[in-house]
Amino acid sequence: MSGTPFVARRHFILGAAGAGTLAGLGGRATGAAEGATRLPDYVSWKDPETLIVHSPRTLEMKRDAFGSSGVTPADQLYIRNNLPAPDARIVQDRDAWEVSFEGVRNPRSMTLGELRQLGVESVAAVLQCSGNGRAFFDHQASGTQWTVGAAGNLFWSGVPLRRVAEALGGVADGRRFITARGGEALPDGIDPNTVMVERSVPLAALDRALLAWEMNGSPVPLAHGGPLRLVLPGYYGINNVKYVKRLAFTEQESEAAIQRTGYRVRPVGQRGAPDQPSMWEMAVKSWVTHPLRETENGPVQILGVAFGGDKALRRVEVSTDGGTNWREARLLGPDLGRFAWRPFALQAELPAGSHLVASRATDAEGNTQPETFPPNERGYAHNGWRDHAVEVTVG
Amino acid sequence: MSGTPFVARRHFILGAAGAGTLAGLGGRATGAAEGATRLPDYVSWKDPETLIVHSPRTLEMKRDAFGSSGVTPADQLYIRNNLPAPDARIVQDRDAWEVSFEGVRNPRSMTLGELRQLGVESVAAVLQCSGNGRAFFDHQASGTQWTVGAAGNLFWSGVPLRRVAEALGGVADGRRFITARGGEALPDGIDPNTVMVERSVPLAALDRALLAWEMNGSPVPLAHGGPLRLVLPGYYGINNVKYVKRLAFTEQESEAAIQRTGYRVRPVGQRGAPDQPSMWEMAVKSWVTHPLRETENGPVQILGVAFGGDKALRRVEVSTDGGTNWREARLLGPDLGRFAWRPFALQAELPAGSHLVASRATDAEGNTQPETFPPNERGYAHNGWRDHAVEVTVG
Repeated sequence: MSGTPFVARRHFILGAAGAGTLAGLGGRATGAAEGATRLPDYVSWKDPETLIVHSPRTLEMKRDAFGSSGVTPADQLYIRNNLPAPDARIVQDRDAWEVSFEGVRNPRSMTLGELRQLGVESVAAVLQCSGNGRAFFDHQASGTQWTVGAAGNLFWSGVPLRRVAEALGGVADGRRFITARGGEALPDGIDPNTVMVERSVPLAALDRALLAWEMNGSPVPLAHGGPLRLVLPGYYGINNVKYVKRLAFTEQESEAAIQRTGYRVRPVGQRGAPDQPSMWEMAVKSWVTHPLRETENGPVQILGVAFGGDKALRRVEVSTDGGTNWREARLLGPDLGRFAWRPFALQAELPAGSHLVASRATDAEGNTQPETFPPNERGYAHNGWRDHAVEVTVG
Repeated sequence: MSGTPFVARRHFILGAAGAGTLAGLGGRATGAAEGATRLPDYVSWKDPETLIVHSPRTLEMKRDAFGSSGVTPADQLYIRNNLPAPDARIVQDRDAWEVSFEGVRNPRSMTLGELRQLGVESVAAVLQCSGNGRAFFDHQASGTQWTVGAAGNLFWSGVPLRRVAEALGGVADGRRFITARGGEALPDGIDPNTVMVERSVPLAALDRALLAWEMNGSPVPLAHGGPLRLVLPGYYGINNVKYVKRLAFTEQESEAAIQRTGYRVRPVGQRGAPDQPSMWEMAVKSWVTHPLRETENGPVQILGVAFGGDKALRRVEVSTDGGTNWREARLLGPDLGRFAWRPFALQAELPAGSHLVASRATDAEGNTQPETFPPNERGYAHNGWRDHAVEVTVG
């Protein structure tokens, strides 16, 4: 991951992104704007100019689309679906959506309409795919080649899961996990455990878990898990189960493959297994969003976003010389809380030539992004600052 | 404004809102969803189900579309344009947009590209039309019959105007106002002062003024003033000049009619004049967004939004008996700062029958919304809590 190789790989990725359209997908025509692409029908409401279509079920936000505001617009938010979404009829009568609650003293099903009466809270939180940054690994990990755009900062509103558990008599004894299952239709004749989206997280996440019906002030779109999504601030996206249909407090982790062997961090070449670390809490991370390639001589505002992941963000530093010298950046706008990201800015003077511009965030417990991040089989969790740096040419 | 009459008037408005479509406007077909309407072409990207079209240039967000999150999605934000927007070509090369700066020691024009290099800040702020709440007045003030939906809470990013003034040598001596002119094309053969959008605010607003190129993380849409809008947090919408083309520090207020005689608070029947209060700083305000008409017996989450206007918000109280008893509501989500609004919630038990549900906010200096608000010729600035209350029937 030193000098030349990582630059070459990164530039390859930036190039590929521009060509990342998918022929043959149904979608709206988008005119001739540079970078515009065709979107799949189910996300035809999104902004094609801000997105890279990797596949019909994986869309990435372009690095130059991130703004300096503390919110990611829904129409620019990445998409990563493990299974096709349920039929759109489930968001036509949202309040009728039923969730079965198990592992509580008084298990039963509740409709979304009932859940709304139990309580409401709102939180700003980063949603990030486990594989965000996968493209920066040198070992060509299989999976979508995300660079930085499989992430967003969103407002979620819904009922705290703790409130629901209390209304159902409390969590049953001996339960160690929150296990949530999505409402996707499964193909016939296949063991459900091989395909279904069911994830478990430690019971400690009950302090932050939200059953959310609203994203950025609107009902959660179907493509993002509406009518009801489990939101676990600080946890990787995969744990934030969409169209949540069954919510169980369990003694063991789910037997679904996506939990047992999927989303496990292990050395390159190894198969996934339950004894490997699961993709749960996110680590501190940041990336520069401007400038990305070229800029003019003179003062430039270096912009980016930074977050602490499971912890609050303490500070961000920026280097314009590949990591030799660092200066603390200014955090912009209001502090949206422990789980949100924060835009940052640093004014710099860049003389003519080539500059490696990097950012490095530190969380409230003093954890700083490492310079490099070790490869792992599936290319998860990359937060090494060097691979996330950008080479800027000043003309 | 006592009991029966105001209820009747309010209910009339709620009814009218549902039918508030405009035949003959160009716009996309929107399907058969209840409440869907046709939108004018220039805002065809907005969500028709959340908007009331009063006229081609005045669109209101429906009261039941407000969510519990600290941001209003761009596609639900109200529209109020005094003149037709400039040609859409002005947002095709945003960085080329030029603004002339006057009343500084070194006056000159700057492009948006140059402004971006000077600095960047981000702020969350309420944008609210001066006439928001006009429909609640009994005297049938002329103008769009807004109820509560000519308002939104937005993230803006741009350069602090103070930074620009400093870069141009500082504000010239004796200047008392910030005067901004929009870039709309004016009709030929008419005195520009009679139609142009040029507004002045006190120089003290320099502490908060932003020249914003970004709204909610995206480039400011043309319909909302892109490529560059003057944002004055805490000031009524009209002062937040769109497509700002000339920014002058002036000794006197603008001679434009929209400043001299328009947006002046005066008794019913009087003409506008420069010696009357101008629609500058906003006052403390709140409104309930749920429930609005009917609800079932049992626990209900009463939801709404509240803001201090020019001051920070201190608290919100809710009454379910028309103002006899009040309980403090819970503020939701992160505090987005002095100029933002905050969603609130209060759990209540409403027995069968009819209930007048009201909210009443107090700002950081102890100013509380009044029960009633005196009529004024143009129906501006209504923040009386009684007219904003909703009658809820529990079956």
